[in-house]
Amino acid sequence: MRLYGGIEAGGTKFNCVIGSGPDHIVAEARIATTTPAETVGHTIAFFQRHAPEYPIHAIGIGSFGPVDLHEDSPTYGYITTTPKPGWAQTDLCGALHQALSIPVAFDTDVNAAAFGEYHWVPENRALDPLLYLTIGTGIGLGAIVNGQPLHGLLHPEAGHMLLPHDRTIDPFEGSCPFHGDCWEGLAAGPAIEKRWQQRGETLPPDHPAWQLEAQYIAYAVANLIYAFSPQRIVLGGGVMQQAGLLDRVRCEVQGIINDYLQSDRITRDIDQLIVAPGLGNRSGVLGAIALAIQAPR
Amino acid sequence: MRLYGGIEAGGTKFNCVIGSGPDHIVAEARIATTTPAETVGHTIAFFQRHAPEYPIHAIGIGSFGPVDLHEDSPTYGYITTTPKPGWAQTDLCGALHQALSIPVAFDTDVNAAAFGEYHWVPENRALDPLLYLTIGTGIGLGAIVNGQPLHGLLHPEAGHMLLPHDRTIDPFEGSCPFHGDCWEGLAAGPAIEKRWQQRGETLPPDHPAWQLEAQYIAYAVANLIYAFSPQRIVLGGGVMQQAGLLDRVRCEVQGIINDYLQSDRITRDIDQLIVAPGLGNRSGVLGAIALAIQAPR
Repeated sequence: MRLYGGIEAGGTKFNCVIGSGPDHIVAEARIATTTPAETVGHTIAFFQRHAPEYPIHAIGIGSFGPVDLHEDSPTYGYITTTPKPGWAQTDLCGALHQALSIPVAFDTDVNAAAFGEYHWVPENRALDPLLYLTIGTGIGLGAIVNGQPLHGLLHPEAGHMLLPHDRTIDPFEGSCPFHGDCWEGLAAGPAIEKRWQQRGETLPPDHPAWQLEAQYIAYAVANLIYAFSPQRIVLGGGVMQQAGLLDRVRCEVQGIINDYLQSDRITRDIDQLIVAPGLGNRSGVLGAIALAIQAPR
Repeated sequence: MRLYGGIEAGGTKFNCVIGSGPDHIVAEARIATTTPAETVGHTIAFFQRHAPEYPIHAIGIGSFGPVDLHEDSPTYGYITTTPKPGWAQTDLCGALHQALSIPVAFDTDVNAAAFGEYHWVPENRALDPLLYLTIGTGIGLGAIVNGQPLHGLLHPEAGHMLLPHDRTIDPFEGSCPFHGDCWEGLAAGPAIEKRWQQRGETLPPDHPAWQLEAQYIAYAVANLIYAFSPQRIVLGGGVMQQAGLLDRVRCEVQGIINDYLQSDRITRDIDQLIVAPGLGNRSGVLGAIALAIQAPR
């Protein structure tokens, strides 16, 4: 069985695996995200150390961003304008390719997660478009459309969509430094903490925070249903760990759409449309493996 | 040169053409949308009448909706649940195929328009994703992603996205029977008329209606930029005929995004990102021709 490398390059850690799929991971490592030299160095060392026993044919990277995905760009494969100290203009793809001399596939962390869910969860292969949302410290969207990850001018940044915000109910002004009360500014982890003056994890399940959270997520999910007409929407990320939140979101989405879209998957079986990740917290790193399998030779 | 048929099946008229592309249309007709039997009958007669002189190899239809685009569905090619009297459950595709015995390609009116702009405007072939919005009696979205029109659970219905609505500035409650103040409920032609008690065409260019209109369109366009990261957004439809509106929308979109997305096509050359239709008012019918060219034999 051919082996591939997968890297989920996150802002706090790089998850690295060697394997051929969800049921066959032969090595893995978690490397702290410190400086590019140190983190990328340790990442390369991980694959080199295992190369004698576990030689890999290609490597896939799902990276925090923004990243450059234009294959004809001089900065293709770079993390570009991130505010994360030391990481702006980091040639992640080039460093891996140079050190390991194998094909390297590159995408955003959320596109990799979307592709992981699409590629490895058998029933998802027929569910195109497939959207993957992470709702945590930030909010990000990955999308598979017509069989491939969505790239464009840049890549999706759906966390910054503008939504209804009734200040008589929720006077919180929002926490996004660029847009104030965009989706992320109203509903990501830091917004929850700032609005309620305590971390989301410490808010009890019956706290009104969760109904408000479900409402904002549902506005955005409804907008994405109207935009993409997806056949599956996977909701991941730390905030979605909250018990009961997924069901509240489903219920609110039905209320918003109000029977306008005549599909059983909305009016009746919305638990088949809006789901938790089939791969748990490994969508990203297993998506990176799937990207590697598809990497051009 | 091979000839193809194109039908833009609208709620008030069916535009029919025979040709091979924008510069080679050999026959056309406008047929009033009355009953399915009459309108489809006249449409078939148009193609049959010209068949001796202008035989066509395939036909493309871009239809008002909702429509069934699932090729394995028993109602594929139907107009489905439309409130338009007499037209619900009309087998448009089947009627044309049965009468003319040639391949029939079928999509929404807006997907056909998007595909027309993508296929026939040379520079657009490199601009994927491409979005086409019509803003008129209703608001609709067509999308080309990874080279093909976007289908999914149903098809895009982006006119019903939920947007910020500050009732202290605009107390109008919205005109959508399903959602009140969704985008279409705030900004389609009927909403303009209901809010200002006169038709949009009669409002002078310096009327505050147009700044408000630009604001709502810009919220929605910004959301679609965040969702799809499109390389081109074509704004068509009757409301967009208003002089100066396109430029106002561009300006408002820049204000909303607020330099968050680092791309010259947003921060500087937004007139290259957000454009009027390259095919004027023929995007739909020429898109239908393009769909016919791609129809499987």
